[in-house]
Formats: sequence, structure tokens, C-alpha cells
Amino acid sequence: MKIAITGKGGVGKTLLASFLSRAFAESGYSVIAIDADPDANLADTLGFPHPENITPISEMSALIEERTGAKPGQAGSFFKLNPKVDDLPEKYCQEHNGIKLMVMGRVKKGGSGCYCPENVLLRALVTHLLLARNEVVILDMEAGIEHLGRATAKAVDKLMVVVEPGRRSVETACKIDKLAQDIGLQNMAVVGNKVRSQSEKEFLISSLPGSQFLGFIPYDQAIVDADLANIPVVDASQQIISEVRNIYQALLSTAQAPAPLE
Amino acid sequence: MKIAITGKGGVGKTLLASFLSRAFAESGYSVIAIDADPDANLADTLGFPHPENITPISEMSALIEERTGAKPGQAGSFFKLNPKVDDLPEKYCQEHNGIKLMVMGRVKKGGSGCYCPENVLLRALVTHLLLARNEVVILDMEAGIEHLGRATAKAVDKLMVVVEPGRRSVETACKIDKLAQDIGLQNMAVVGNKVRSQSEKEFLISSLPGSQFLGFIPYDQAIVDADLANIPVVDASQQIISEVRNIYQALLSTAQAPAPLE
Repeated sequence: MKIAITGKGGVGKTLLASFLSRAFAESGYSVIAIDADPDANLADTLGFPHPENITPISEMSALIEERTGAKPGQAGSFFKLNPKVDDLPEKYCQEHNGIKLMVMGRVKKGGSGCYCPENVLLRALVTHLLLARNEVVILDMEAGIEHLGRATAKAVDKLMVVVEPGRRSVETACKIDKLAQDIGLQNMAVVGNKVRSQSEKEFLISSLPGSQFLGFIPYDQAIVDADLANIPVVDASQQIISEVRNIYQALLSTAQAPAPLE
Repeated sequence: MKIAITGKGGVGKTLLASFLSRAFAESGYSVIAIDADPDANLADTLGFPHPENITPISEMSALIEERTGAKPGQAGSFFKLNPKVDDLPEKYCQEHNGIKLMVMGRVKKGGSGCYCPENVLLRALVTHLLLARNEVVILDMEAGIEHLGRATAKAVDKLMVVVEPGRRSVETACKIDKLAQDIGLQNMAVVGNKVRSQSEKEFLISSLPGSQFLGFIPYDQAIVDADLANIPVVDASQQIISEVRNIYQALLSTAQAPAPLE
């Protein structure tokens, strides 16, 4: 199964990606988590011991040029839209607690350009990756909507949109819904995050009528405290672990995924 | 003076852009506010009565093609890096409460491409705009760091980075600092937002040693409530209006801007 997690900046995409990766890994799946945000932090959130040793795809200049025909950051040039990618995942990831992590981008040099070639490579990767029954790919997308213009996540089985109780994140979810339909992505679901009360939950449900909600993650100060104390967030909240397990179950039942191990 | 506001998704860039626009307008400046985030909401936050009537630059396909030589969204093609822009601001903005608003982008069709040509046009606009003494341009940038790769805000006089008490937003600020130096932008300052306590303020100061803090905006539940009730956020909090006036003063003194009216 291939899952992309998207939403407005700051709603908790990386939080959901990390807890969900863990829920899949604990259930016996082999998880490939892909941090697709150049302003990346999934490695930290998952508690990878040496995130600085992960080579992001955006720094593999020779690889990107070889596969897409374009130098990274070079938007004003033609590049291949269907590069070869089937040998990438094994070579370019690190593993920790049963989760393999790939990182799309990190800080480039300022002024060195956009992330178009990297997104082309990532789209090809997500499209052509053939998964075994017990494998799952979880993409933590960049904030906002540009990746939908680029159709980076076109080939996922499920688009999960994270919203928080606030009008802006709901508006972004509506835009994402429209854009996802444009690229033929119909299997969209919503997860509420930082929910403090029943009325906030009801606000989200009434603001997104017709949406499929997979669950509501409560606001937990323990997450903020863990972050400030530089402790892996994925270990910090038992109530979030428990709620994300429910979301994992809901996801499996709606996506009709195969059982992890036979 | 040209100011760009940047930071991690969700930290409050649009909040600062709107309150700061208002502080400048109330002090007699003519303000051009530019919403440079394709997942845009500055018009709502500023209380523009009919934001849907503002034509975003990204929808001016003919204009973008005429000026940059590229169809919007078409990254895989060459385009002019120095388009003509001096006639744009008057034509393509709406005015409300003394603030002129331009919008970079709104929802495109999914799969229609990146925002590279729009960013080229915006960069040219910011670079070549000649301002009178009483004019100020305030750019509300997209979340994250890609715009710094694109050097969209290369020609601003001041880069304001918004941080909230949380390690991720501080990490993004560090990346922004590095990227800004790459493109020769040295006049950077920091604003703390959603600050709930003295210890959170101290966390921010100690996490960003050597940074110039222009002020600390308190967390105010009235902002969240106004948002949920769909009331313009810029009218919702007297304590934020007051703190942003201080930030405005600090900005003027560090940027050595001319007085607004002579």
C-alpha cells in the first residue's frame, strides 16, 4: 500500500507519518517512510540515531542528473519525466526500528533553484515501486499544495489529509480535495489533529461534510514538551500511539489492504 | 522598504504579515501586501470583503507567458529570468483599509505543474519595484524553504523569520538563515509567536543565539476563536496589535527606513 500524508503547514503531518509508520512496523509490515519535505524532520521525529548520515535524494546530484537529465534545482531546462528508479529504495535508505527511511531533500544552497527535478524522481519512484504484500510506503509531503500541482503523489492508494481545529487548515483540505480529483486521486481520507474538545471535533466534521474521517488525535502537551526536550516525539504519548493504532485499523479496512504476513 | 516574512508552516507568517501591514498603514505608509503562498489566505486574514475577486498572478496565464516566456506550471522549459514588471502592481491589486493586496497564486489544476514561472515573475517584481519614501512591500512567503532555493525574496531589505516555541520551527529558522546568507540576504530578524510564558521566550532566545529578535507575540486564544468564527483575525486581539506596533518600531529603527510622510 502507498500512502501520502498532506495538509497545511504545522497541522502535524510529520507527527502522523511517524506514529503511523510505527503502527505498521509493529503490525509486521516492512515500512518505507519517505520524507518528501525539503524542510525535513521525519528522521528526528522517528528517533533515527544519526539523521545527518542519511543522504537526501536532493544531494545525489549525479544520480538526479543521470536519471532525469536535469541538474537539481534547474527548472529552466527539459528533463525526463519517466526516469529509471527501481533500484533506488534499497540503496538510499537507512533503517531503524523496522522502518526504512528515505529523505527527499535537505537544505540546498540558497538560490540554487527549485525542487522540480527531485519531485519528478520521487513521483517516478512512487509510481514504479512494486510492493510486496507486507510492504507499505508512507510519504510525508511538503506543506501546502504545490506538490499536487506537481502530482508528486499521483500513484498513491490513499491520500491522508491532516487538519487541526482552525479554518485555514480546513480550507487547505478543501483545496487538496479539489486538486487530488484533478489528478485522479479519489481515495482521500481526513485525520483531525490537536483536538482539544468535542466541539472542536464537531467543527472539523461539520466543516468537511462528506469527508471520510479516519480518526481524531487529541492535543497532548507531552508532544510539545518532548519536542522542546529533544526527545523522539514518536515515543512521547501513549494516548496518541493508541489513537493512531485505531487510525491504522480504519485505514486498512477502507483501503482493503492485504494482511501483512501470510 | 521591502520586507519578506518566512518560517516553518503554521508558525503564524500570515498573522504577522497582516498585523504588520496594518501597523504600517496606520502610520501613514502606502502598503503593498503580497501573498506569495499558493495555499493563500492573507486576503481573509486582512478582512478583504471579496477575496474571490482578486485575480492571482498564477491565473494570469497570458501575462506570465508574455512576461516570462513560459506557460505557468511548465518547469521543463526555458523561461526568461528578467521579465518586465514595472506596470504590474497598479493593475493587479485590490485595496482595503489602505492596504493594496496582490496574490501570487491560488489553487491551480492538480497536476498542472510547479510555481516556478510565478516565482520568477514575483522575484522580478520585488527586485525592480521602485518604492516612494512612504511605500512598503510586505511579502507573506510560502511555508518552508523552497522559495529560498528559488531566491524569490532576494531583493528584500529585511527578512523576518517567525518562530514558535518548538524545536522544528527553530530548525527551520536556522536553515533559512543559512540559505539567506547564500543569496546575500544579511538583514534577517526573528519574531517569536504563540509565546505562552517567560520560559518559552527564553527557549527561543537561547535556541537562536546571535539572532536579532524584534519582539514576541503572545499566544492569544482570541485569534483561534476569531478564526473558527470566521471573523478577520487582524481585528481580534488588542494585545497582538499592541505588540506588533512595537515590532514595527523595532523594524524601522533596525532597517533605518525613511519616515512615511514628509
